Formats: sequence, C-alpha cells, structure tokens
Amino acid sequence: MKLGIYQFDPEWGKKKHNLARIEEKLTNEDNVDLWILPELCTTGYQFTSQQELNKLAEKFPAGFTSNHLQNLSSYIKAGIIIGAAEKTEHGIYNSAAIYENGEYKGIYRKLHLYYEENKYFTPGEASPSVFEIKGVKVGVMICFDWIFPETARTLALKGAQLIAHPANLVLPYCPHAMLIRSIENKVFTATANRIGEEDRTGERLQFIGNSQITDVQGKRLGKLSRNEENILIVDINPEKALDKSINQYNDLLGDRRSKFYYNE
Amino acid sequence: MKLGIYQFDPEWGKKKHNLARIEEKLTNEDNVDLWILPELCTTGYQFTSQQELNKLAEKFPAGFTSNHLQNLSSYIKAGIIIGAAEKTEHGIYNSAAIYENGEYKGIYRKLHLYYEENKYFTPGEASPSVFEIKGVKVGVMICFDWIFPETARTLALKGAQLIAHPANLVLPYCPHAMLIRSIENKVFTATANRIGEEDRTGERLQFIGNSQITDVQGKRLGKLSRNEENILIVDINPEKALDKSINQYNDLLGDRRSKFYYNE
Repeated sequence: MKLGIYQFDPEWGKKKHNLARIEEKLTNEDNVDLWILPELCTTGYQFTSQQELNKLAEKFPAGFTSNHLQNLSSYIKAGIIIGAAEKTEHGIYNSAAIYENGEYKGIYRKLHLYYEENKYFTPGEASPSVFEIKGVKVGVMICFDWIFPETARTLALKGAQLIAHPANLVLPYCPHAMLIRSIENKVFTATANRIGEEDRTGERLQFIGNSQITDVQGKRLGKLSRNEENILIVDINPEKALDKSINQYNDLLGDRRSKFYYNE
Repeated sequence: MKLGIYQFDPEWGKKKHNLARIEEKLTNEDNVDLWILPELCTTGYQFTSQQELNKLAEKFPAGFTSNHLQNLSSYIKAGIIIGAAEKTEHGIYNSAAIYENGEYKGIYRKLHLYYEENKYFTPGEASPSVFEIKGVKVGVMICFDWIFPETARTLALKGAQLIAHPANLVLPYCPHAMLIRSIENKVFTATANRIGEEDRTGERLQFIGNSQITDVQGKRLGKLSRNEENILIVDINPEKALDKSINQYNDLLGDRRSKFYYNE
C-alpha cells in the first residue's frame, strides 16, 4: 500500500484555495493508495469566536468541502483521510473525513480536544473506528489523541493495521511518541502535520511539521522536515501488522492482562 | 527525594556474593531515599530448568535474601526496590520486593513475562500496586511490563508519582519508551537495568545497561552507559507529578475518555 502525506501551510479561512492546492498536489502523483492530510487543513486552526468557526464548518458528507474531496478521491482512485471542521446539530467537531474511490466512508470526531479547541469544538462521543481502505484496516485519530495511549490501543484492538493521524502539532513530543505507539501495538502510523504559523488570538502557534510514517517496529520509513511544504510517499506492507507476536512466547495484544488494568 | 540506581553485572547463582556487592555500594552513599535495583539481580536471569530456579528462589519476606535486604534498608535508612525470584505455594514469580527503613512493604509480581521467563515463572495475578515510601507514592513494574502502556497507566491512575522499574533489558526500545511513559502519565520513572551477558541456554543475552531516571516531561535527569557498573543518583521533586494538568484546558488523567476505550 502506497501512502502519501501532503504537509503544507493552509491559509486560514480560504477553503477553496486550500482545496485547490490539495487537488493540485494529489492529482500530480500516480498510484498513491491512501492520502493523509493534516488536521483542519481546509479551514485553518485558530478561531477567535464560535461565530467564526460556525461560518467555516460544514456538514459531512453533504457540504461543499466533502463533495469536493469525494470527487477528488474518485478522480485519483485513492483513499483520502483529511482533517475538517464538521458542523452537526449537536455542535462542531474537530473531525477527520474518510473517502475511498469516490465513496464517503465515514468520519472520526476527535476524542481529546487540545487547549483552546475546547472553547469552540464539541468532543467526539464515539469509540474511534477502523475503516477498510483498499483492503487495509485503517484506524483514525487526530493530533492530541496521541498522548492518550488508549486511543492507538483501541484502534489496534479493533484490528487497525495502520493508524492515520492528521495533526496540527505545536509541541515537540509526538513524533517520538508515535514510534512507541507503533512498537507497543505493532502497527504502522502516518502522522500528517502542517507547517507554518497562526497568530489570530494573540498567541502565536508555530506548527512543527515533521510528518512521518513509521513501521511496526517503530522505525521511521520516511519523514519531512520542520518547515518544508512537501509530499511524502512511502510503500508499506500492511500484512506485517497482522501478526502481533514478537517471539514464540509473546504476543503484544494476546499477552495483555486486561483484568488487572485500570480504565476509570 | 534522592533516588539511587545501582547498575551492575550480577553473577549468576551467587546470591550471597551479589547481596554483598549491593550492600557495599548502598552503604557507601549517604542520604539516598530510595534505591532501585535491577530485575532478578541476586539470582541472575537465565534458567535452564525449573529445578534450577526452584533452588535459587526464596520466600518473601521470610527468606534469607529478604531478611538481608530488610536489615540493609534499616541500616541505610532508605527504601529499596529490588528484583528477585519469589517462591510461593502457587509457583515462582519474577517479583520486585519493596522495603523502607527496615520494614518489608510488599511485593509486585511481574504481570507480563518475557520470552523464556514463561517456561519457569508464574505470571502475577494482581493489579500493580503503589507503595508509599518516604511520603511518596511509588508504583512498581518490571522490565517487559513497559511495552504494555496499561501498566504505567494503571500505576498513574492509582496515584504513582514515580514508577520504579527494575529491568534486565536486552532490546533497545525501552529507554526511549520510558520517556513517553513519563510524558503520557506525567510521572517520574527510574529504570534500573543490569549490564553484562548470560549464555546459559545456548542463547546469548546481552543486557543493555542504560539505566535512567526521567522527569514528568520525559526529560532524562540522569543516565548510565551501556556497559558501566555504576550508581546513578538523582534528586527529584515528586510534587511535580501530583498535578496532571498540562495547560488551563487539559489534564492528562482527567481528559481520558475511558468509556470509549477498549480494554478487552
């Protein structure tokens, strides 16, 4: 399975412009099976009011952005996982929408909101799901979800071979942590982070780039730098994530002693 | 709280000799509050038969080794957490015994046995516990427990400020992973690993040393090298582990969405 990440600096509020850039990049590469794009990468990240976010958020799969992405996934015959602001009757979610070959597959709503996201977004209210894309089980989590090991673990227990991870990281820890998420779950991970900065609230956020794809043993298969706008394409063998044994005696999921773990 | 780790190369089967070395090192340092010693560091690690292990394992707190360590902790007025082979009516456990100022505080029995440990040891049958030592809540886990994020998480949820981690590591991943265990739980960690090698089964094990102490943000406060026999002493402020907030909106334990996590 050929994975593609597009790391870029979205322009805040310019959805059509950002979608056009995405379309240009993704149509320019052949044979990518699944594209993973950053968190909130059509709208931008920092909001100064609920009204502002309400204006930019859209319904999925009904809205303009979703239709555009669905068509794009049909045209390029690929999967697309992309962070977006999702408007619903219950509030606005920091979500990731999932498409494959022109089909809308579903959505993941971020469970763990970071910092001022809590002011305007509603936290997800469902266990993270696994989506089958091109025959591969792909779990989805967003940015700050990484710090809660239960997120990746839940996805691995649900059969994820790959964890797709749209992000807008500002702190330096996550790229190292994702190596450990790979090792402890024997899964591939693909973190699509953005670059650039935003300073709409008086608090300057510098996004750290460093998008990466890791294998099931915590090795980086590819990585972008802190500041480059670029694509990263890596071929993975998802079958390697099916067998959770690490030697003849140990199996990473089978050896769990769940009745002795706290989950409160 | 002043933490001490003694990283050394135990001689297989020579319990009195190993205890004498431990005693010499620990009595030579003043004002250490808590010593953490490697896994199975009085007996050695590799066994070739159940009989061999049966001969070396002892009862805790009744046996010679436990009495010796209890007296030592009284003499040096410190806590001691040490890996040992524990004999019981139900089997032999790969355990860590905990002492403080001449008092036997209890035992932790390794939940996740690694590789050929499964041939001769019985896995622990209790949720990992937190022990109060010198007013600080100390969780205990052993070696391979690190790869299951639930172990450190369980200890953090039970209030551990410090995770004491006796180990006999042979793979390279754990020292990096423990930085992430610190970050995701906002706890201090102290991994006491051994050095040297054993080749009693025809399979040569090279232990990786690299004992370390990390702070609540995943910074190494001190570290030993791969091969040195040495002590590592680091002063920590355990109060830093009490507050799990990371900004005004986020709290590492409070933000958990446990009803959406799988624990099966």
